Amino acid sequence: MAQWIAFGPAVFQAARVLRNTGILQIVEDSGKEGITLGEIAAKAKLSVYGARVLLESGLSIGLVLLNDHRFTISKTGFFILHDALTKVNMDFVHDIYYKALFSLDKSIETGKPVGLKEFGDWDTVYEGLSQLPEQAKESWFNFDHFFSDDVFEAVLPLVYDGGVKKLLDIGGNTGKWAIASTQYRDDIQVTIIDLPGQLDVAKQKVAEKGLSDRVAFIAGNLLQPGFQVPSGYDAIWVSQFLDCFAEEQIISILKSCNKALDYDGFLFILEPFWDQQKFEAAAFCLHQTSLYFTTVANGCSQMYSKEVMQGCIEAAGFEIVEQSNQLGLSQTLLKCRKRS
Amino acid sequence: MAQWIAFGPAVFQAARVLRNTGILQIVEDSGKEGITLGEIAAKAKLSVYGARVLLESGLSIGLVLLNDHRFTISKTGFFILHDALTKVNMDFVHDIYYKALFSLDKSIETGKPVGLKEFGDWDTVYEGLSQLPEQAKESWFNFDHFFSDDVFEAVLPLVYDGGVKKLLDIGGNTGKWAIASTQYRDDIQVTIIDLPGQLDVAKQKVAEKGLSDRVAFIAGNLLQPGFQVPSGYDAIWVSQFLDCFAEEQIISILKSCNKALDYDGFLFILEPFWDQQKFEAAAFCLHQTSLYFTTVANGCSQMYSKEVMQGCIEAAGFEIVEQSNQLGLSQTLLKCRKRS
Repeated sequence: MAQWIAFGPAVFQAARVLRNTGILQIVEDSGKEGITLGEIAAKAKLSVYGARVLLESGLSIGLVLLNDHRFTISKTGFFILHDALTKVNMDFVHDIYYKALFSLDKSIETGKPVGLKEFGDWDTVYEGLSQLPEQAKESWFNFDHFFSDDVFEAVLPLVYDGGVKKLLDIGGNTGKWAIASTQYRDDIQVTIIDLPGQLDVAKQKVAEKGLSDRVAFIAGNLLQPGFQVPSGYDAIWVSQFLDCFAEEQIISILKSCNKALDYDGFLFILEPFWDQQKFEAAAFCLHQTSLYFTTVANGCSQMYSKEVMQGCIEAAGFEIVEQSNQLGLSQTLLKCRKRS
Repeated sequence: MAQWIAFGPAVFQAARVLRNTGILQIVEDSGKEGITLGEIAAKAKLSVYGARVLLESGLSIGLVLLNDHRFTISKTGFFILHDALTKVNMDFVHDIYYKALFSLDKSIETGKPVGLKEFGDWDTVYEGLSQLPEQAKESWFNFDHFFSDDVFEAVLPLVYDGGVKKLLDIGGNTGKWAIASTQYRDDIQVTIIDLPGQLDVAKQKVAEKGLSDRVAFIAGNLLQPGFQVPSGYDAIWVSQFLDCFAEEQIISILKSCNKALDYDGFLFILEPFWDQQKFEAAAFCLHQTSLYFTTVANGCSQMYSKEVMQGCIEAAGFEIVEQSNQLGLSQTLLKCRKRS
């Protein structure tokens, strides 16, 4: 296991290149009969040497098996080739934070995303997102959407079936939640708060769906001193947003939410908490994803445990009244209200 | 397993930084009682956030355990911290080919060590070795020596006890083998062939030991067209040298050796062959080390299997007459003679 860790980057790149060169597909296509090194190299249009170092690495990683000079695919090889989560994670790691991880130590020391300089001279990745190289942008959004796209259906009733009609969506991003909400029931109205640049995208998407009369927009930066979350809503919705902030920032944002809500209002927080996962592999992915926040995103945030988040929630004057786990791929919904 | 591969670079860097920041040592020092996150952060002089993302990553990797908010060290954590092989491998991967692995695909496509450009504008790493940054140089030599230093004692009798007195040492490097040989028995004489720059180091080391009358030197590049290995030796010694060349180059070098030897002469080849290892972890390390040759060293060589090497040996007109496995950490000695 120690050697596996020590050669982690080689393991990763060998698996990625075995996938991208088509070698794994060629081996899978050969079925139970298997295929020789020479045949693989010819089909993949690679040198025998190149195919050999990749396949031998893959043999030790457990992606392929070798018997009587014929390679066959393994179960792990199958997952590297076909599993959507694995593909999204590998592309995200390579295109977004492989290089940045090299200076993980410096990011930890300074509290800054030192690896972000690989892409540009910004304080956080969010400022530069639209200017990332095409492939990096694609991997970033594929990753982002993979974890959020399948969760709304399960969450909508949990948020709206208790009588919530007027909802404030903090960090509304591209407007997906606002659109899903207003399509869920006719009497629901949503107001999105986000940075001005982000709001333009959301406005356009909402208009395309013909929902502009049901969705309002407020441009604002919640971290700006003096910014106060507006009042008059039945509930505030904060989805996959707080993981982009440090603990003290989260407390500040939630305190502002607390001021804005009445005692019968609700705060909904949707996050993938690593200590609420059913499977170890899910917690593993969240833990390693945290290092993206450390090295690239902003140097100060992470995929939190529910335990840490609960500390922030309580410090901001809320209490958790309901918790729903295993929504979508890995999310937990926390329904909170003001502590009297 | 697929997720572990997908996050291989994060796993590697988290483990490395957990080791280098002293966190693993702090956790080990806390013994069975364990230690809290806050205490660890204070002792390591890191932010709670920084210590937390590292420790949570380490928790999923299996380097530390967490019970009742107290971290204790695991067996794998112990090896990351104390195992010399693991330490040498991790430092070599980070300092020498972490960045280069990013362009593994391009190295495979082109047959060039594309990652070498991280260090300088050379065709092979050997040309630039003396100009590498200090830390990279240290990690390179630590790695190189770790695998060769402990093998000579076991090999000397296998080479010299059959009557060999006059030996030609191809790629004699820093003269270690020549010194060990001439110190092994008084009637042994060694001639080293190596590149001119390399010979200066060997000459100095030999002189320091007072062995200059027993060791001779020939400056030469075996790959230069027309270069012929000199005759008149009982045996030719090629140790941990052929892995620096492509198969066709190996055959060419061995053909030149074949011309130089009489029918009663011997060719000795010492190499760590991945298909002769007793432990899977040893083959694993060799397979992943091959990618260093692909991305940094020269783009065309590797840690070979005995099977591939035997093909080269036979193509050059030799046959293997004796094989000794498990010498030192991972080496095999092949004793060959000319096929009549």
